[in-house]
Amino acid sequence: MLKAMSKPSSKKCRHTGCPIAFTLDVLGDRWTLLIIRDLIFMGKRYYGEFLESGEGIATNVLADRLSRLESEGIVSKRVDPKDQKKYLYQLTDKGEDLLPVVLELILWGATYDPKTAAPKAFIDRLKSDRAAVIKETLAQLRAKKPKESK
Amino acid sequence: MLKAMSKPSSKKCRHTGCPIAFTLDVLGDRWTLLIIRDLIFMGKRYYGEFLESGEGIATNVLADRLSRLESEGIVSKRVDPKDQKKYLYQLTDKGEDLLPVVLELILWGATYDPKTAAPKAFIDRLKSDRAAVIKETLAQLRAKKPKESK
Repeated sequence: MLKAMSKPSSKKCRHTGCPIAFTLDVLGDRWTLLIIRDLIFMGKRYYGEFLESGEGIATNVLADRLSRLESEGIVSKRVDPKDQKKYLYQLTDKGEDLLPVVLELILWGATYDPKTAAPKAFIDRLKSDRAAVIKETLAQLRAKKPKESK
Repeated sequence: MLKAMSKPSSKKCRHTGCPIAFTLDVLGDRWTLLIIRDLIFMGKRYYGEFLESGEGIATNVLADRLSRLESEGIVSKRVDPKDQKKYLYQLTDKGEDLLPVVLELILWGATYDPKTAAPKAFIDRLKSDRAAVIKETLAQLRAKKPKESK
């Protein structure tokens, strides 16, 4: 089973021009979106931090998905300016554009999971003022980003 | 590889209460969302119709995903009132609530796939008046639904 879960990324559907199929092919599987969640909402930026997530991602799966996200231009990887021995991962603009997808996954999950841990205040706000939540989340993300070196 | 793609549904991530992980676990993989796409936008309702989609879903994968969607309460299956030998699949209310997720997948794919076949007029409308697109799509879906027999 682990084998089945660790290798969905190399096989893509036949290209049909369908934008849903395209996005799903790029994203690959659930682990990719959980890494994106960690980058957006958990402030995670280091390899070791992603490993600590509650869902228990395996180290080989994490390495594969980070490399995939990097090659798709969704995540950038660079040497941490504060510690040359570490790599810093962050969402690119293309990655940040996945925020609305993630927010809709949150809304649906919070609605249908009776054991959801999603904070009610956040869900209510997301329902009543989605545009503001997107704007604020992006502003917070960008404020935390170290300055880009071109 | 086919084996890897046909069996992601039985293994779920550790339950953490995260609404994103919950939704991704329920959806399972890309094929599930492509079936939901076909139900929403292609007017498909029969097993054979889903098989004909351009992405080339295998019959065993289709059977597995339809059964999964049914057990998750996202799709309902019943004998076709017009032909007792056939089954009719349709989205439940819970399934229709996935429309916003699907629309965001469309937007992202249409933005980043240089070969996208997404109609520009639809994408422009989705960007400028998302709420109206949701309302109209749901209205069209519901108009096509045969009356529920309780």
